[in-house]
Amino acid sequence: MLANTLYLPELREMLRDHDEIGLREFCTALHPARTADYMQGLDAAEAWQVLQHADSALRKEIFGYLDEDLKVAIIEGENREQIAELIAESAPDDRVDILEEIEPEIVNQLMQLLPQEERRDILRLSSYPEGTAGAIMTTELARLSEHLSVGDALQVLARQSEELETIYYLYVVDNENHLRGVVSARQLVSKLGKPDTRISELMESDIVVVRATDDQEEVARKVARFDLLAIPVVDDQWQLLGIITHDDVIDVVREEATEDAHLIGAVEPLDDSYLETRLMTLGWKRGLWLMILFATGALTALAMRHYHGIQEQWVWLGWFVPLIISSGGNSGSQSATLVITAMATGDITLKDWLGVVYREALIGMILGGMLAVVGFFAAWLILGRVEQAVILPITLLLVVMCGTLSGAALPLAFRRLGLDPALMSTPFVAAIIDVVGIVIYMNMALIGARYLFETP
Amino acid sequence: MLANTLYLPELREMLRDHDEIGLREFCTALHPARTADYMQGLDAAEAWQVLQHADSALRKEIFGYLDEDLKVAIIEGENREQIAELIAESAPDDRVDILEEIEPEIVNQLMQLLPQEERRDILRLSSYPEGTAGAIMTTELARLSEHLSVGDALQVLARQSEELETIYYLYVVDNENHLRGVVSARQLVSKLGKPDTRISELMESDIVVVRATDDQEEVARKVARFDLLAIPVVDDQWQLLGIITHDDVIDVVREEATEDAHLIGAVEPLDDSYLETRLMTLGWKRGLWLMILFATGALTALAMRHYHGIQEQWVWLGWFVPLIISSGGNSGSQSATLVITAMATGDITLKDWLGVVYREALIGMILGGMLAVVGFFAAWLILGRVEQAVILPITLLLVVMCGTLSGAALPLAFRRLGLDPALMSTPFVAAIIDVVGIVIYMNMALIGARYLFETP
Repeated sequence: MLANTLYLPELREMLRDHDEIGLREFCTALHPARTADYMQGLDAAEAWQVLQHADSALRKEIFGYLDEDLKVAIIEGENREQIAELIAESAPDDRVDILEEIEPEIVNQLMQLLPQEERRDILRLSSYPEGTAGAIMTTELARLSEHLSVGDALQVLARQSEELETIYYLYVVDNENHLRGVVSARQLVSKLGKPDTRISELMESDIVVVRATDDQEEVARKVARFDLLAIPVVDDQWQLLGIITHDDVIDVVREEATEDAHLIGAVEPLDDSYLETRLMTLGWKRGLWLMILFATGALTALAMRHYHGIQEQWVWLGWFVPLIISSGGNSGSQSATLVITAMATGDITLKDWLGVVYREALIGMILGGMLAVVGFFAAWLILGRVEQAVILPITLLLVVMCGTLSGAALPLAFRRLGLDPALMSTPFVAAIIDVVGIVIYMNMALIGARYLFETP
Repeated sequence: MLANTLYLPELREMLRDHDEIGLREFCTALHPARTADYMQGLDAAEAWQVLQHADSALRKEIFGYLDEDLKVAIIEGENREQIAELIAESAPDDRVDILEEIEPEIVNQLMQLLPQEERRDILRLSSYPEGTAGAIMTTELARLSEHLSVGDALQVLARQSEELETIYYLYVVDNENHLRGVVSARQLVSKLGKPDTRISELMESDIVVVRATDDQEEVARKVARFDLLAIPVVDDQWQLLGIITHDDVIDVVREEATEDAHLIGAVEPLDDSYLETRLMTLGWKRGLWLMILFATGALTALAMRHYHGIQEQWVWLGWFVPLIISSGGNSGSQSATLVITAMATGDITLKDWLGVVYREALIGMILGGMLAVVGFFAAWLILGRVEQAVILPITLLLVVMCGTLSGAALPLAFRRLGLDPALMSTPFVAAIIDVVGIVIYMNMALIGARYLFETP
């Protein structure tokens, strides 16, 4: 992503010259993520060769920051034993993610080479469905007995600090691994002067947890609300299964926001990044929605045909159809966007529906009124006649109100039905309003033709 | 948000009975965020009374988790001296945020009551424009000299751990406050057995920083990329000004995603949550965009008028106008959504423009082809004639291709011009395609009328 190809020639030269010292310096001098950025552009064999100059702890770190493509190429292409070692040392959550991208046959070979404990851990973690807390948790965490003292706990930490993903929360469990409390490194450090303090005295026992089967959105919501660095994952018996750390939560927040944005834009969410998604997959994920929208849109043609009488009488009616339906669609899109994002962030819940509908009705009157005024003059200008132009403002007011109301009500209805409100994409809202808009417009014209003007 | 009104009657009863023990228990038993949730629904005076039963450290924590409205009511309504004390103890970034919501006159009164140091800190922090790193940083952080030993550093930490927002990174500065390195609490703990180790030996000197003037999006990007718990903020001379912690970064990621979603939906981003935004503000933020879209949409009426000849000849042409332009608009919305979100997450940069345009051209052909097939049969059914129905598939193919291409190209062009690509909202893309779609359709009809069929 942040590929920086500045150092590539130097790196390749060092590899050619077997410059051990230079390569070791390259691996250790920078933040591992920066080292990884500079390696972007190397092929798998070159990258793997560079990584040989870092010790195993650093190697797994730099490897973790490489782009997915390069990771996959290294795992699939390099020596199985060495790769198995790398995987054994990688963070439990990360290695499960990357193994999902690898050829099943190679995964099998690698699994054979892993210590039994690691193999079990991988199988257990990969059993949780995507999008759940279990699928993003890691199993490396600091477990403590409540009978320990602060001094003991610090010793345990000092020994394990290299291996753990976070040492900033320590989880207190009983003999059956039931979660009893949590102690922060901050609390331990504040008691440095009193190393005999019992952990049980220090620990928080009102713990914020998630279940392994909870949706990852719930994880993000809790971590954000309680300002946590990590959240423990438990099963129904309150047994501690793992933790989810802040960096994974940021990824979840991003992922969910992108997914919502795609749904709002009528694209079935992608599993990979835009450029990495295969063209046929993209075609399918978009084509499906386009077809649904097209089917809904075909109703507009039927509606138009239905009112052909008045259109033949006043051909100019057709000129304003796109303007009218797009005004309704736009105001509806705005309402749907606002309501969907407000529900995603928790600003609106189903309880608020009446308030939302009331606001949107008022907003619809305000916006519809504005467009009605402008629309009247636009119609007057374009038509050159004032008497018939009055149909436009009345139609615009009604269509915009109908747009804001359905834009707000449809996502709420979807949530009520237990569906993702973002499924009510703005193009779909617009498609519905297109049909309704035409019906309103033509009926206004019919009424106008009958009462206001004499039929020509 | 998560208002839980279950405990309200009990709380009010305890207040009425002056149940000191019960109220102290209520304040201390739960996570402060939960305590705050249970207090939602109390009025400002009641809430403030409850908070008197927590010690000052806990009081500021619980207060920090209350809803903004309640915070404002408490600050504006309660005893100035006590409130000034609370503010003096609150986190520097949070208090600046909340003071912005308070009546200026009351802020002045409170500022007089604050210690000079705090007053200066507030003035300095509030001088950074919204959306910059400076505006979200906090100034409470652990500063160390590089000449200290690990043992000394742990002592410093133990003393300060109560006051600091995070103790998990310690920042090493020279005598002039220039940032020299960073040490994690993890590193300190791992050296518990060797307390004489110098900080200078332990510290990382390849530090990831942001400038105070950097955009908050840049902050979020770096924290996510480097998996940081906190990122230091420096000025141009590399002087350490503050830090931004992980919890504020999650808020930024959410805020930016919502802002982008609003822009994509053609709503000027709101400063407050949906329900808290005043109706007239909402009307203005939406009306502005609706007007722009209406003005663009008025071009469709002109285009339709321009081609009135062929429409009078074939009235049925008008029936399909909504269907055709919405198909173009929908495929364009999909492309714009994909490209905008991919740019927001960094999956696409300007360098990739050619690849993106190429993909969208191909996708346009695939999707356009699909709709053309379906469209032909739909037109045949609705028209009841096959010869004229062929105009539809050709038009649909061209319009959809035009939709995907402009949906992808317009956000890229906006980014190229240094503007936010999300400004190229999907309704705007659709409005442009509406006009182009009509022109394509009518010209196909004209060509069809001239060459394929004899004019009636």
